[in-house]
Amino acid sequence: MTDYTPPLADIRFVLWDMLQLGEHALDRDLGDAILEEAGRFCADRIAPLNAVSDREGCTRYADGTVATPSGFREAYQAYCEAGWGTLALPEAYGGQDLPHVLASAIEELLNASCQGFMMYPGLTHGAVAALLASGSDELKHAYLPKLVSGEWLGTMALTEPQAGTDLGLLRTRAVPRGDGSYAITGEKIFCSGGEHDLTDNIVHLVLARLPDAAAGTRGISLFLVPKVLADGALNAATCGAIEHKMGLKGSATCAMHFDGAIGWLIGEPHAGLAAMFVMMNAARLSCGNQGLAQAELAYQRAAAYALERRQGRAAGSTAEADPLIVHPDVRRLLMDARAFTEGFRALVLWTAAQIDLSHRAEDAETRASAETLVSLLTPVIKAWGTDRGFETAVAMQQVFGGHGYIAEWGMEQIVRDARAAMLYEGANGVQALDLAARKVARDGGQVAERFLALIEGECEVAPGELHELAAPLREAVHEAREAALWLVTAGRENPDEVGAGAYPFLQLLGLVAVGWMWLRLAQAALPRADEPFCAAKLAVARHFILRHLPDVGALRRQAVAGAAGLMALPPEAFQPSG
Amino acid sequence: MTDYTPPLADIRFVLWDMLQLGEHALDRDLGDAILEEAGRFCADRIAPLNAVSDREGCTRYADGTVATPSGFREAYQAYCEAGWGTLALPEAYGGQDLPHVLASAIEELLNASCQGFMMYPGLTHGAVAALLASGSDELKHAYLPKLVSGEWLGTMALTEPQAGTDLGLLRTRAVPRGDGSYAITGEKIFCSGGEHDLTDNIVHLVLARLPDAAAGTRGISLFLVPKVLADGALNAATCGAIEHKMGLKGSATCAMHFDGAIGWLIGEPHAGLAAMFVMMNAARLSCGNQGLAQAELAYQRAAAYALERRQGRAAGSTAEADPLIVHPDVRRLLMDARAFTEGFRALVLWTAAQIDLSHRAEDAETRASAETLVSLLTPVIKAWGTDRGFETAVAMQQVFGGHGYIAEWGMEQIVRDARAAMLYEGANGVQALDLAARKVARDGGQVAERFLALIEGECEVAPGELHELAAPLREAVHEAREAALWLVTAGRENPDEVGAGAYPFLQLLGLVAVGWMWLRLAQAALPRADEPFCAAKLAVARHFILRHLPDVGALRRQAVAGAAGLMALPPEAFQPSG
Repeated sequence: MTDYTPPLADIRFVLWDMLQLGEHALDRDLGDAILEEAGRFCADRIAPLNAVSDREGCTRYADGTVATPSGFREAYQAYCEAGWGTLALPEAYGGQDLPHVLASAIEELLNASCQGFMMYPGLTHGAVAALLASGSDELKHAYLPKLVSGEWLGTMALTEPQAGTDLGLLRTRAVPRGDGSYAITGEKIFCSGGEHDLTDNIVHLVLARLPDAAAGTRGISLFLVPKVLADGALNAATCGAIEHKMGLKGSATCAMHFDGAIGWLIGEPHAGLAAMFVMMNAARLSCGNQGLAQAELAYQRAAAYALERRQGRAAGSTAEADPLIVHPDVRRLLMDARAFTEGFRALVLWTAAQIDLSHRAEDAETRASAETLVSLLTPVIKAWGTDRGFETAVAMQQVFGGHGYIAEWGMEQIVRDARAAMLYEGANGVQALDLAARKVARDGGQVAERFLALIEGECEVAPGELHELAAPLREAVHEAREAALWLVTAGRENPDEVGAGAYPFLQLLGLVAVGWMWLRLAQAALPRADEPFCAAKLAVARHFILRHLPDVGALRRQAVAGAAGLMALPPEAFQPSG
Repeated sequence: MTDYTPPLADIRFVLWDMLQLGEHALDRDLGDAILEEAGRFCADRIAPLNAVSDREGCTRYADGTVATPSGFREAYQAYCEAGWGTLALPEAYGGQDLPHVLASAIEELLNASCQGFMMYPGLTHGAVAALLASGSDELKHAYLPKLVSGEWLGTMALTEPQAGTDLGLLRTRAVPRGDGSYAITGEKIFCSGGEHDLTDNIVHLVLARLPDAAAGTRGISLFLVPKVLADGALNAATCGAIEHKMGLKGSATCAMHFDGAIGWLIGEPHAGLAAMFVMMNAARLSCGNQGLAQAELAYQRAAAYALERRQGRAAGSTAEADPLIVHPDVRRLLMDARAFTEGFRALVLWTAAQIDLSHRAEDAETRASAETLVSLLTPVIKAWGTDRGFETAVAMQQVFGGHGYIAEWGMEQIVRDARAAMLYEGANGVQALDLAARKVARDGGQVAERFLALIEGECEVAPGELHELAAPLREAVHEAREAALWLVTAGRENPDEVGAGAYPFLQLLGLVAVGWMWLRLAQAALPRADEPFCAAKLAVARHFILRHLPDVGALRRQAVAGAAGLMALPPEAFQPSG
């Protein structure tokens, strides 16, 4: 099995050549030094955990405590000491206030090294974001410094057995205790890092209903519930079980019992869903990052295997056997993987740079515009990125032939690990509906049109040498526009039309967004086209445009195919029967 | 978790309404009675093994013996006693001589019930086919009766660590012992059922080289090597290890040591590859059957869950929550699954009926024509069927949201189990090359054209009510024809062009073949369109043609996109580097 090589050259190319951040957002020398150090840390300290994470998994003892796999505790200490969790967090609470785009690049390295490990600090970032946005000064003061430093870790305790996608169905109750705190009682499931041995305290962000709450999502509030109270007493928040999962076995997925646990309200009563969405949106972008990371890891192993393993011969070769890389169909798999990882990495980092703009830009219009684009792209990055990340892992497993199915090669673990992110933080179908209904249909397609016009504008001014990329991309923009208009129009008559077209529309928009990134990457590579790195960039750009972008036609047809066919059968026609 | 319901109504519809077998090939009452009994046997005796198979897996002891999961031995006894393995085998050796099409239908039920179990008897059928085709009368007499009855099981011992796809690299040696037998020495891997506790004897079909053998595939011979010799002595064929795999854990995948093991030649010296391909082709068709079976199992569980689980509401509903099945995007997933399972089942059974014709038709031309079509479709059924089978399993897992990732729901096992068939018996990229190079380019596209013309002809005479299906299918045939012609023409200049277009071409041909089946299924359903079963068939046919067939355009473009882009980069450009 090959080790993980942090793809620093590619990240640098996106940061400095494509995004050209150096000038205004991040000092290039500083950024490079931090990336270099992060790469070393990930390769040396985190990547060795990945196989152990899968082999050992977590263990829950009868007293409700949970042990993480061997080496996790030590690695987590090193992670905190080096400050890898604090990069983009505010200085006011002990963070480094570095741009989100740098933190996002490093998040990929960490996710690729061992996602099962990164689930613990990763979710904490969402908790920090929610507290920053909606927490009282008292709560911020009491919890943020230790969450930022990593001394404590955070969780999201949202899902209940009967309430997954549909949080309106949740039953956990919060009763005022008269001293400003609340007693929280209920059962939560799928709580990642709900219990573990990495930190002394764990801070749960819990959705619950106040006594006077309305039914449905309008009656949900968000609470902070620590495992250990300020006086050192254990709170009534315990882990009842950990799930046996397909992958990510080093991440403890806990069923949590809250039995009158003491908690504090975050934000306004009954406004929990909005407060929760701050952390959920962060988590969704992180999912896309995970898809990218797993695909990159899988690609690296498959490429190394294809260069090493000898089976069959190139056309005209007289060798006993040539490396797999001589075979066009193996090249196809590897080029597809690069078309995804390199193009999607650019999109992830472009979006992270937009998040920075949304916080830091001087004029309000730029901030608002950036925020809107991030909001539009969040479901695309989550769903398109995790779908392609998983598919890429599966395709790279295929490069190994039968060996891909054998545990010792490590490829099947990547596939199992990569599967999770399509399901959690809102299954990908829910992302598609978020995109099509909330982000496109609801505003009459205005933001989507702004995004498409931005791409179209860049196609129009692309240099002549890139016509072969810009022209098909412009056509793809037309397809996307047509589909968006259809969703807006047909959705006014019948919301099911939006649901029926949502998934192919998201796939279409993902292709267009990444196609746009390929145009930008190619533009950045053009001046140095004689250098191997830039020549490869241009070759992969052409591959994406030639072999992937044409899918937009079929996707547009699917997006506008309508709900009638999908809904034609009565429910009982789906009942399995002999 | 829902149990498995054998889809007998759907199988009957294909056999009697679409293929209209009753008249000439199989007595309808007899066929129905056997299907009914097979369905009961699978649901009662085999399906309960599936979870156990995954949970327990196989155990290899220090003495080299291997224990299968609890219940496998008893179920295998029952399987043999009921004669489920003997259906389509020749009466001369104790078989029932029933049509292959019926055996194929029942194979699906067995695979869906527990593929890990079915791997043992499944591979034996290939060994029987190879012996029937190439074995001496002596070998047939000595081994076939017990292989047919199931008293003994067979294996394929082909792969070696350095020789997977490229069997020309294999090193196992066979030295004549002077008495007509050979001493076989070498290491084989990935030998399914190489050792187990289901039968007293195991019959290995082993590829090896004679002392005077040429290098490469022309120097390979096939040998029969029993675990136990006729005098009761143990042969020098032992299991050195069993693999830890992603799935199919109840199937023992063995590394086998042959240490001067006594064996007998099957067929002519140096003609082992041809003899082996008889069993390999049978195994490849069985892979497609496995893809179908796993997809059907996954669909049934997802459909039951979608009817039961309440999350969200239908447009305009005032319920607290409606079943998932009200959501168009959930319908999309379920309709996609049916478009695959029902359409591909028809193709599997149509092909099985062609196998029957190739053996039983009165005139030689019909026999030859059927055989050629089976040969063309074998890689399509293997690769397209296992790709879609896996994708369907993944999509059905998605219906469960986060619960799909949790082992207790059983969906992640289906995904892990379904992954194998894309890799073994020739990875799917190898299937695509077999199709594009050997089955299409080599004969100038004649057989492919015959197949496409057959479909085109049926489109032309399809009833007017089915114009909405026949017209797009006819267009799809044009796309396939264009791609096939390109492969033939471009391949003459450069074989890499064939390799570069092979995979999308196979995907395209799979879509066209299953689209054709949907036209036939719709035609069979038309006269009874007012019955719910037939109304559903017509609705799913429209869904396939509307939402899946349009992919042929993009696939055709990929198939003719050429090798230059894929091969543009030097191999070192694929070396991971920071």
